[in-house]
Amino acid sequence: MSSSRPALRNDLLLRALCSQPTPRTPLWMMRQAGRYLPEYRTTRARAGSFLKLCMNPELACEVTLQPLERYRLDAAILFSDILTIPHAMNLGLEFEAGEGPKLDRPVRTAADVAALPTLDPEGELRYVMDAVRLIRRELAGQVPLIGFAGSPWTVGTYCVEGGSSKTFSHIKAMLYGDPRLLHSLLERLTRATIDYLNAQVEAGAQALMVFDTWGGALTPAAYAEFSLAYMQQIASAVRREADGRRVPLVLFTKGAGATTFAALARTGADALGVDWTTDLAEARRLVGPGIALQGNLDPSVLYAPPAAIRTEVARVLASYGRGHGHVFNLGHGIHPDVPPEHAAAMIEAVHELSPAYHE
Amino acid sequence: MSSSRPALRNDLLLRALCSQPTPRTPLWMMRQAGRYLPEYRTTRARAGSFLKLCMNPELACEVTLQPLERYRLDAAILFSDILTIPHAMNLGLEFEAGEGPKLDRPVRTAADVAALPTLDPEGELRYVMDAVRLIRRELAGQVPLIGFAGSPWTVGTYCVEGGSSKTFSHIKAMLYGDPRLLHSLLERLTRATIDYLNAQVEAGAQALMVFDTWGGALTPAAYAEFSLAYMQQIASAVRREADGRRVPLVLFTKGAGATTFAALARTGADALGVDWTTDLAEARRLVGPGIALQGNLDPSVLYAPPAAIRTEVARVLASYGRGHGHVFNLGHGIHPDVPPEHAAAMIEAVHELSPAYHE
Repeated sequence: MSSSRPALRNDLLLRALCSQPTPRTPLWMMRQAGRYLPEYRTTRARAGSFLKLCMNPELACEVTLQPLERYRLDAAILFSDILTIPHAMNLGLEFEAGEGPKLDRPVRTAADVAALPTLDPEGELRYVMDAVRLIRRELAGQVPLIGFAGSPWTVGTYCVEGGSSKTFSHIKAMLYGDPRLLHSLLERLTRATIDYLNAQVEAGAQALMVFDTWGGALTPAAYAEFSLAYMQQIASAVRREADGRRVPLVLFTKGAGATTFAALARTGADALGVDWTTDLAEARRLVGPGIALQGNLDPSVLYAPPAAIRTEVARVLASYGRGHGHVFNLGHGIHPDVPPEHAAAMIEAVHELSPAYHE
Repeated sequence: MSSSRPALRNDLLLRALCSQPTPRTPLWMMRQAGRYLPEYRTTRARAGSFLKLCMNPELACEVTLQPLERYRLDAAILFSDILTIPHAMNLGLEFEAGEGPKLDRPVRTAADVAALPTLDPEGELRYVMDAVRLIRRELAGQVPLIGFAGSPWTVGTYCVEGGSSKTFSHIKAMLYGDPRLLHSLLERLTRATIDYLNAQVEAGAQALMVFDTWGGALTPAAYAEFSLAYMQQIASAVRREADGRRVPLVLFTKGAGATTFAALARTGADALGVDWTTDLAEARRLVGPGIALQGNLDPSVLYAPPAAIRTEVARVLASYGRGHGHVFNLGHGIHPDVPPEHAAAMIEAVHELSPAYHE
């Protein structure tokens, strides 16, 4: 397979995620293919809905590549959603305008868990793998392609709640009242996620990221038992090599505290995502050498004028400090109402200011 | 004044907040007077709206006392809202059903800040002080009364955004793009908050709490400059003695991390609120001796059956461990859809299990 693929011309991301030297700090943005871009909104309108856009490999490829045409970014990330797995499990996913995802058939009982089908990533989820293959071909070695999945806990919150939640009432009633049932669901999701990520690597993903968006809603004890333990299984089981090169794995728990960073560093992940509420110097101290960090500009900095954006980029670069193993990113997805020229100001600042930290 | 007030029959809260010995762990619940109680919903319907309920001292007193009739709690907390100050500043507060607060006239410019009136707590906010006086009289020394305010940063987010926000786009554009303007607003809010809290103590509040609900949305540097610094001013300036007794001050930043706890411990506050994402043992280590802790059961534990609630109460008590200076509470306000008997299970468990930690 590797012989048919063009050589990677910009491997800064892969090197930085493996804590190897780079001449500057590579960068990409979470949700870089998204609503803040007018060209994305045009393609999405053409697709008819967010879900149809995810499920159409040609259009998913098109929006994946859009930010690379506009900005000097060091990675593409598969345009998809963390809810592809529950969708493929036939839980009845819909995205209602302005309301977020809804799952018509939430998982609440042992019978619901037992009824979950085993997925074939090249079956129900073939559209994802087709998108990965197409994007990888269209990228033609320009930058690496990141594949991803949600963490089992995070995906589980949607499965049990039937959508987004502020209080996580159903899944926490299960967590505290019937923990075995929740574990049985998380085991099913973990197996599906490992197969899904391995298939993405087989299809061409060159780095992997697991988004644990809601791990921060848990107590430290519940986080260890219901989120971290399953990300640990993923880190131990996913394929970490392709085309003779390391496929780095990034774990990102939003809202992680000090204990969480130390524990995530022991999972065997190559890199950790950091949101803006932890200083990178502190995170670096907590995880120790050999684990790269990805982050962590407050995405709301992009509401400020370009001069202020540059100041805050400088602050993030300085907080990581000298040395390799930093991938610049936002601390969360880019907000849909950010002016695209503000993202440009951030990107230019990283290009200009970061080489000094790699001399 | 003190001679006209009955002696306090249960001072466990005041002693625990001052890290003094108590025979068991005292407890109260954030939002203990609230929508989860059918008797509250009846009174609120009678008032006509949430805001009218806040502004009617007799009805505010009635709902403040309701949870004490039902449960063995060790404190009453004034029924009010953190937005009384912007309301009194004439920013046009309304609570729309299911949508949270809206402020018709948000503060976005230097002229907006300059136009903010100086408040007289016994003028525009007299209804709050009348409620404090009435509650204190009706309590007749049963338990102490807690007064409160929002932190300047947290109240400021509503003033600038014009309501609730997920991204804090306006106030963060101001924070990063025009920090002086934001400081001028926060200074005005801080002065008003100090006067407001002092007036509550004068009217009869026996402990004070400052709710920094949105401090956790800031980077560590921005938190220090725009939230902590103003809570520090409050801690230095508010009256801490009444009727010959210490009026303890509790600061609560939701989403606080390790650095935040260490910094809050140096403000001179008597106690810190802790949400459920930090282990109490860890928080205790971070703040050191002489600072009490208040928390931190995950409020969503109350969705689970009573037996599971008891297990989780035991876990929270054990995480604080032996010794004084712990006030049991939820890590955030009780959710409106929790069954009242589940709150009862929590309260009984604290009464039964906590004496062992005070022997």
